[in-house]
Amino acid sequence: MLWSGWGDPAKASELPEPVRRLLRDLLGVRAPSVPAASLESVRLPEAALTPAVLDALAEVVGAEHVLTGHEARVRHTRGKSTPDLLRMRAGDGCDAPDAVVLPASHEEVAELLRLCSRERVAVVPFGGGTSVVGGLAAERAGFPGVVALDLGRLDRLRSVDAESMVAEFEPGVRAPDAERLLAAHGLTLGHFPQSFEYATLGGFAAARSSGQASAGYGRFDDMVVGLTVATPAGTLELGRAPKSAAGPDLRQLVLGSEGVFGVITSLRLRVRRAPVGWVYEGWRFASFERGSAAMRALAQNGPLPAVLRLSDETETMVGLAKPDAIGSGGSGCLLIAGYERAPTAEPEGVPVTEPEGVPVTAPGQAASGKAASGEAVSGKAGARKAASGEAGFEGATGVPSGFGGFSGDDRRIAASAVLARFGGEPLGAEPGRAWERGRFSAPYLRDSLLAAGATVETLETAGFWATLPRLYDAVRLALLGALGSPLVMCHVSHVYETGASLYFTVVTPQEDDPVAQWERAKAAANAAIVAAGGTITHHHGVGRDHRGAYAAELGPVGVAILEAVKARLDPAGIMNPGVLLSRPEG
Amino acid sequence: MLWSGWGDPAKASELPEPVRRLLRDLLGVRAPSVPAASLESVRLPEAALTPAVLDALAEVVGAEHVLTGHEARVRHTRGKSTPDLLRMRAGDGCDAPDAVVLPASHEEVAELLRLCSRERVAVVPFGGGTSVVGGLAAERAGFPGVVALDLGRLDRLRSVDAESMVAEFEPGVRAPDAERLLAAHGLTLGHFPQSFEYATLGGFAAARSSGQASAGYGRFDDMVVGLTVATPAGTLELGRAPKSAAGPDLRQLVLGSEGVFGVITSLRLRVRRAPVGWVYEGWRFASFERGSAAMRALAQNGPLPAVLRLSDETETMVGLAKPDAIGSGGSGCLLIAGYERAPTAEPEGVPVTEPEGVPVTAPGQAASGKAASGEAVSGKAGARKAASGEAGFEGATGVPSGFGGFSGDDRRIAASAVLARFGGEPLGAEPGRAWERGRFSAPYLRDSLLAAGATVETLETAGFWATLPRLYDAVRLALLGALGSPLVMCHVSHVYETGASLYFTVVTPQEDDPVAQWERAKAAANAAIVAAGGTITHHHGVGRDHRGAYAAELGPVGVAILEAVKARLDPAGIMNPGVLLSRPEG
Repeated sequence: MLWSGWGDPAKASELPEPVRRLLRDLLGVRAPSVPAASLESVRLPEAALTPAVLDALAEVVGAEHVLTGHEARVRHTRGKSTPDLLRMRAGDGCDAPDAVVLPASHEEVAELLRLCSRERVAVVPFGGGTSVVGGLAAERAGFPGVVALDLGRLDRLRSVDAESMVAEFEPGVRAPDAERLLAAHGLTLGHFPQSFEYATLGGFAAARSSGQASAGYGRFDDMVVGLTVATPAGTLELGRAPKSAAGPDLRQLVLGSEGVFGVITSLRLRVRRAPVGWVYEGWRFASFERGSAAMRALAQNGPLPAVLRLSDETETMVGLAKPDAIGSGGSGCLLIAGYERAPTAEPEGVPVTEPEGVPVTAPGQAASGKAASGEAVSGKAGARKAASGEAGFEGATGVPSGFGGFSGDDRRIAASAVLARFGGEPLGAEPGRAWERGRFSAPYLRDSLLAAGATVETLETAGFWATLPRLYDAVRLALLGALGSPLVMCHVSHVYETGASLYFTVVTPQEDDPVAQWERAKAAANAAIVAAGGTITHHHGVGRDHRGAYAAELGPVGVAILEAVKARLDPAGIMNPGVLLSRPEG
Repeated sequence: MLWSGWGDPAKASELPEPVRRLLRDLLGVRAPSVPAASLESVRLPEAALTPAVLDALAEVVGAEHVLTGHEARVRHTRGKSTPDLLRMRAGDGCDAPDAVVLPASHEEVAELLRLCSRERVAVVPFGGGTSVVGGLAAERAGFPGVVALDLGRLDRLRSVDAESMVAEFEPGVRAPDAERLLAAHGLTLGHFPQSFEYATLGGFAAARSSGQASAGYGRFDDMVVGLTVATPAGTLELGRAPKSAAGPDLRQLVLGSEGVFGVITSLRLRVRRAPVGWVYEGWRFASFERGSAAMRALAQNGPLPAVLRLSDETETMVGLAKPDAIGSGGSGCLLIAGYERAPTAEPEGVPVTEPEGVPVTAPGQAASGKAASGEAVSGKAGARKAASGEAGFEGATGVPSGFGGFSGDDRRIAASAVLARFGGEPLGAEPGRAWERGRFSAPYLRDSLLAAGATVETLETAGFWATLPRLYDAVRLALLGALGSPLVMCHVSHVYETGASLYFTVVTPQEDDPVAQWERAKAAANAAIVAAGGTITHHHGVGRDHRGAYAAELGPVGVAILEAVKARLDPAGIMNPGVLLSRPEG
């Protein structure tokens, strides 16, 4: 991952000429005068941890897993928001940790939290490092030091229970590795956020991630059926059943807690049979309202495509849905619908009835539902090792799960009828293919835009259907008011029966202090979201950037609840201080 | 509601002769020698509240809404578990509140909580009074008095947002009234637990209820998109969007909190278009394992009937699925599948495309998504007043929601193919009709059984699919061991992709001390559930009866979280003391 930008530097691309022209002529973007800093020149705070503390950390994880070098510190500084990148490009590494520590087990994590509590060293849990809301920028004031707890060595698929369709993972598994490991079992999570290439499963859980196929596979919080959490006050084991009436669902208290209560060290996740492929189709609607009404009909009355997104007029015109051909969009509003491709026939070898007397479960399976494939496999080399073919889909109906028993083609045909009924004009598979090609590339594009002198950033919210038009107008107006004449684009990215999310992308020429420029715009957008009754974030999380708006959304009693939980689980206040919640005074 | 039993006494029925024979010959049940107490003879604790406190309560809600009479106190004593009924039949009213207070608004509830916190008077939120886990039996030790906070006057449908498909209710609305009020809008909650006739919406939320159509409509916690909660520390407003990444989902902390943090005073609930009718069908499977495998296939690969339940061999033999013809069951295992009946054609008058330029929302809708029908309507007389026909299903596809865009008949045909593939033998509609007739009558039957000298009680758990066989065996063995040779029946009542619930019904001859007898059996079952890895309750809740097992399930860190939240929201510890959590020592 590029230290001052996104992704594999080899994948970076020059901006196409239409984009350069658009930036220059439409927005007045000019190349920045100051060149970006090099990694070596980034200014870091003096490393503050005492040799005694460093020795104690090394005693837990081994000296080779305590990193204090310049590059490791730079690479664990903040996340990937535009202000984060702008600060790094300016050589500002003031939020760097003093050391990076890499534990390899729950027990090591628990021991590190005890040690850091005792020494009052702040701890920043670090997964893929893809936070775009300041979730990795702990406030160091008052602490003798800050460590980044890099979970990259906790990278195993621990078990697959193909009967319960539950897989247990360690938190540091990156999403592509998780998919590769599951593919060996014919399974998938179906979680594809834009951060897919780098983000980790633990990060998805800690930040309540939602992927591009959420209409079909649910949000990440829908997938979590069990969690193990190491906290300074001890270990929390949650999830004995899919659902329970045994008190509040504390899984939902850990999900979204962004590391302020502890560190997720194991996740039990609902998995599904992997589809044989995907079909994405484009539709054009005359207006955002018309397209939204069609999406609402699909969300409320079905059938839901697994992927469903709708760009507003501006985003459609700019063609951001096709980052490889930006500027080539058309008129109206582009909707992308994605469907799993159904097997054409009953798969070979799947028994249509089970032999008499076969128990639901093989005898002797372990209590925790972790039995089926047993042997743990590494996230890097394990895909080949993972047992294949044993997943045993006795329940197979010839249709992958997520289809609700109806083939993808049935679903596509039924959903298409609804889209047409609402005035949608079918554009065929090409816009869908273009979207698929570009679905993870917007962050690369952002790097190029930043280098060209444009500030580009995204923000998102969600609300009930009846509030969305007001929310949409309010955020647009706030951004226009704060930035002069930026390009403000929006799409509906996730739908529910009762509402949906709005995802905004803003492009504006960089001022002399682009961070201050964006902070001004962001504050205006946050205030507009709170006032219009939306939630301050639908899937990016709270971090430090949304903390104030989050407190306003939650109200003082809600904040008091979280503070009380934190005080009990993390009495020394070392866990990701300043993230999610303001630090207590004094 | 019968004070010492269930429901309308007029609906009570004599036990059919086959049942009497079965009880006598199979189980050795003999009629009890001691007659049941009368309401007047129930022994209550001396009313403990001072006149000053009673005056202060009356000042908040009006003197006519503070009840201290014998009958009111008896009718607010405990809930409807078998031990509850046995104690009442024995004239034991020691858990009665000193007074019953009936607030009519959020503000009155908030004021009552402030007053009771100041005076350290314990508060038991009281909805339908249908708890079967001791959720209404607060521990009075250490308090100068206990009031039951009866929410029966908070009985309004406050608004319907037909665009967002969200209805806002007060907590004291009983489930049948909620359905009647929604029916005027063509809407339904689709929540039909066995307590349906008496339970309230607030109680469903506080106890994480799950209804018989949960496969199609979800659990009650799936329906809640917003909550207002009055706590001694202030008011909590939750739910600005269907889903959010703004921190932990605190709605899921309130759901299942059983009144120990505060009182739910408003619920925003996801509603659906009401189906035109229902079809229930019976299937016979050779074994519980085979039937479970079929259910698992439907849950994991679809399509799911809206109702799906499977009786084990014993329950099928006894025929408990047909309480009006008990003892007439057959062999094997009976599965009931229920489907909404689809409209046969596109409804008349539904526009297939919207006129150009119609916005998603009418202008000027209120921020909270409460606009569409505006005027609040009373839970008792309001159904007629509620605006009908304006629900405006622009999204209508001719198929009610919950069908996922596929008609009930398509769904029935596809699900039937799966059931047949797993060896199910179709029994047609008659077993389904019998189940439908008896779906809410088991509690009436229990009254008759208790009077005849049988102890009958239910308990339930849930787990992941791979753990269910072990869980099933463990609970059965525990009950058989504790009770000699009781009748132990079970059904799978709710299914999920990753697991299911098990619902046990036990019938045994009453010993001299039937409460102690059941407590012994219940303790054995609880221990078995905990040891086998299940959750201690899937939809009945924790109350006082499951408190110990719940603490074991949650672990000390989980308990510490809930204690910390309670200490912050209810510093005087007055809210439902001893329910869910043990009271702090000292």
